Amino acid sequence: MDDLKSIIRDVPDFPKKGIIFKDITTLLADAKSFQRMVDLLSHRYIGQKIDKVVGVEARGFIIGAALAYKLGAGVVLVRKPGKLPSETFSKSYALEYGSDTLEIHKDAIKKGEKILLADDVLATGGTMSAVVDMVNVLGGDLVECCFMAELEFLKGRSKLPQGKVFSLLKF
Amino acid sequence: MDDLKSIIRDVPDFPKKGIIFKDITTLLADAKSFQRMVDLLSHRYIGQKIDKVVGVEARGFIIGAALAYKLGAGVVLVRKPGKLPSETFSKSYALEYGSDTLEIHKDAIKKGEKILLADDVLATGGTMSAVVDMVNVLGGDLVECCFMAELEFLKGRSKLPQGKVFSLLKF
Repeated sequence: MDDLKSIIRDVPDFPKKGIIFKDITTLLADAKSFQRMVDLLSHRYIGQKIDKVVGVEARGFIIGAALAYKLGAGVVLVRKPGKLPSETFSKSYALEYGSDTLEIHKDAIKKGEKILLADDVLATGGTMSAVVDMVNVLGGDLVECCFMAELEFLKGRSKLPQGKVFSLLKF
Repeated sequence: MDDLKSIIRDVPDFPKKGIIFKDITTLLADAKSFQRMVDLLSHRYIGQKIDKVVGVEARGFIIGAALAYKLGAGVVLVRKPGKLPSETFSKSYALEYGSDTLEIHKDAIKKGEKILLADDVLATGGTMSAVVDMVNVLGGDLVECCFMAELEFLKGRSKLPQGKVFSLLKF
């Protein structure tokens, strides 16, 4: 995995001073790395009959859509408030300062469907934890939360269902 | 294409009263329709050695990523201001009321690379026209602008390079 890790760019002082941001766009833009990343992630779920992959706005859409295509599944969008046109279920969750809200279409997941959650980076886990709750409320059968990369020092994994978290690249 | 068209849901009065919104999430969530849509779109470009597919935030990421995976290309993100961490090129464009701005990483496209632009719906064409300009400034070789669906009555096609627009489903 070291070749994939090394193509992720460190951007200092983004989004604020003192933070070194892991910029995954360099990996996405490199055709071979992008293919390999999707192949490695999807390989884990082939044969598991995933019905839908849930992608979290916005970069989770990239991983989610590519995985869904490869796995022969549908794509479900979790979006910021006001973006989804039909009837939604909303979930608010705490951030370091303040809170945020996400929405999903109420009819996007049917009871018992096998659901894979996908996002680019697991940081504090707050966002994905909210998405797990949303999928549970809608009656989906959560297979796993998968990430392209994980910032282990932020311990986001501890907020997610035990044994149902997978990340390809660990920092 | 009628089966794909019929699975797109009409949502009345979104985002404002009197507008009937074409909700593509119902197509994305249906595994067979999603696969078929990506296969039909990508079929047009197989063998054309596309280097990168540019996806426009946020729903364009879905189409862009799936197409890029299928075509063996990289994915480049065009995002709202302040989201891309490294050095960007910005482009503002007029909306019905006011204006909007998009950004792309300056090093995301190299001179002469064969570029496919992807978004979900072609409406007025303002957004995609700005993206075409950005790709030209960075020296990309634009192959085509492709869309899952086109709202023909809005005549967005007239704002884009002649002969370089393709949409799968027309409304």
